[in-house]
Amino acid sequence: MLHFGALEAGGTKMVLSILDENRQILVRESIPTEPPSVTMPVMIDFFRNHQVDSLGIGCFGPLDLNPASASYGSITKTPKLAWKDYPILSKFREALQIPCAIDTDVNAAALAEHAYGAAQGLGSCLYVTIGTGIGGGLVIDGKAVHGLVHPELGHMLLRPVERDPSPDGFCPYHKGCLEGLAAGPALEKRWGMPAFQIPEDHVAWDIEAYYLASMCHNAITAFSPEKIILGGGVMHQHFLFDKVRRLVAQSLNGYIASPAITDGANDYIVPPGCGENSGVLGAYLLARRALEEA
Amino acid sequence: MLHFGALEAGGTKMVLSILDENRQILVRESIPTEPPSVTMPVMIDFFRNHQVDSLGIGCFGPLDLNPASASYGSITKTPKLAWKDYPILSKFREALQIPCAIDTDVNAAALAEHAYGAAQGLGSCLYVTIGTGIGGGLVIDGKAVHGLVHPELGHMLLRPVERDPSPDGFCPYHKGCLEGLAAGPALEKRWGMPAFQIPEDHVAWDIEAYYLASMCHNAITAFSPEKIILGGGVMHQHFLFDKVRRLVAQSLNGYIASPAITDGANDYIVPPGCGENSGVLGAYLLARRALEEA
Repeated sequence: MLHFGALEAGGTKMVLSILDENRQILVRESIPTEPPSVTMPVMIDFFRNHQVDSLGIGCFGPLDLNPASASYGSITKTPKLAWKDYPILSKFREALQIPCAIDTDVNAAALAEHAYGAAQGLGSCLYVTIGTGIGGGLVIDGKAVHGLVHPELGHMLLRPVERDPSPDGFCPYHKGCLEGLAAGPALEKRWGMPAFQIPEDHVAWDIEAYYLASMCHNAITAFSPEKIILGGGVMHQHFLFDKVRRLVAQSLNGYIASPAITDGANDYIVPPGCGENSGVLGAYLLARRALEEA
Repeated sequence: MLHFGALEAGGTKMVLSILDENRQILVRESIPTEPPSVTMPVMIDFFRNHQVDSLGIGCFGPLDLNPASASYGSITKTPKLAWKDYPILSKFREALQIPCAIDTDVNAAALAEHAYGAAQGLGSCLYVTIGTGIGGGLVIDGKAVHGLVHPELGHMLLRPVERDPSPDGFCPYHKGCLEGLAAGPALEKRWGMPAFQIPEDHVAWDIEAYYLASMCHNAITAFSPEKIILGGGVMHQHFLFDKVRRLVAQSLNGYIASPAITDGANDYIVPPGCGENSGVLGAYLLARRALEEA
């Protein structure tokens, strides 16, 4: 039986898993993200000890994903300075001497949703995580989209809501981008309490739903995904789904004449079909492909 | 020698061309777009008389491009009521009895730019036309993107500019969408004169460039195209390119750390490499593919 290593590399924690050929999770461990000199040896030992046949990495970004680049598989510009320009892919390849593959954490999750989750059987899907940050992974024609760099959906610019006391948001880079307006920390800064403490009838959620709906509106007009999957901590407020669906239909105003949207979008804007496992299954898929292509 | 029919079907005129295997344009005619009962027989006669081996149609939309749909190849929801729900593809197929293919006018142009123009050799590109309306065609991994319906980039929502006297724009469907803010008619309504009469130093162009740059910003964060091609009548104001490039770099603020953008985007945001022929060459490509796949 083959064993696959799956690494969900995040800015605050690293989740390390071992899966078998039937995508059963055999082992799962989580360690804090410290500088590479501390964290990398622990991870290398973990995957080496479990004798994995290949490794897939769903990684926080931005990443260099251009196969022709000298720094392919490196983390590039990150506020986690110890990891800036760190060649995570080649370090794993050198240490483990097995096939390794990398993609953004959200592209990995989108691949998993496409293969096993809410977008099974479709050509395309958009996976968006709304948590400490906001990121989007995009699968078109069965493949993760990289393009020039890779999508950075959290930094899309949105029209402000009139009732929003902080219509410019809190992103240090961009006035009025999605992440600065709608990520968990933006909710907390705007309303003075953590997202999970904000009551369901608070105007905060109407404003939040408006921004998420605007993002969906713009994604639909930009590349017309066949399914939009919203995950991450903020979406644990499940009542948000109906608000977002309603506002997307209202905002598009019948212009995109697809029943998937005009009939209420109940089956179009959905939670992850893989539940909390989109990330690990995405990394697993990357590992499988790395082995197949080796 | 094979002959290919290329139809650029627009809301105000139909441009009919015949090309040979070397993509030389042998014949080109333009007729006004009247109701199908008037215009279709003329077009059918034209392509029949020139004995084309196949036909490609780059068509105004929205279109039904779902091959599994009963109304595949129909124009769907258009303000040109005589063409609403008109099955243009099947009418041509029935009348001409040759392979015919259809895509949106802007997807056809994007395919041509990818095959022969500014995006040759790249995996992806975005083609945007800014004229009477605004539309975007998207090629990813060498293929035109359809997804749920097809992109409708003109209806992306944008943040208003403070100095804009009409920050909600003029689209009857959406407050603050790209087309309502930045298409030719929006310029004319906002400033009381046709776009081509507005002097180069008028604030109109700063505002126009801001909206086009916001669209580029959002496209880059959404799907990271390898090239952005801006065409259409409004872009005949060539000084707009430099304004847009500068504002895109400023707006992304170094976050997308690709030299293609941070070095000034001179080679990233560009006019069509096929000049005024993106549309006809796109329809030609559709015709060639229709014949190959027949």
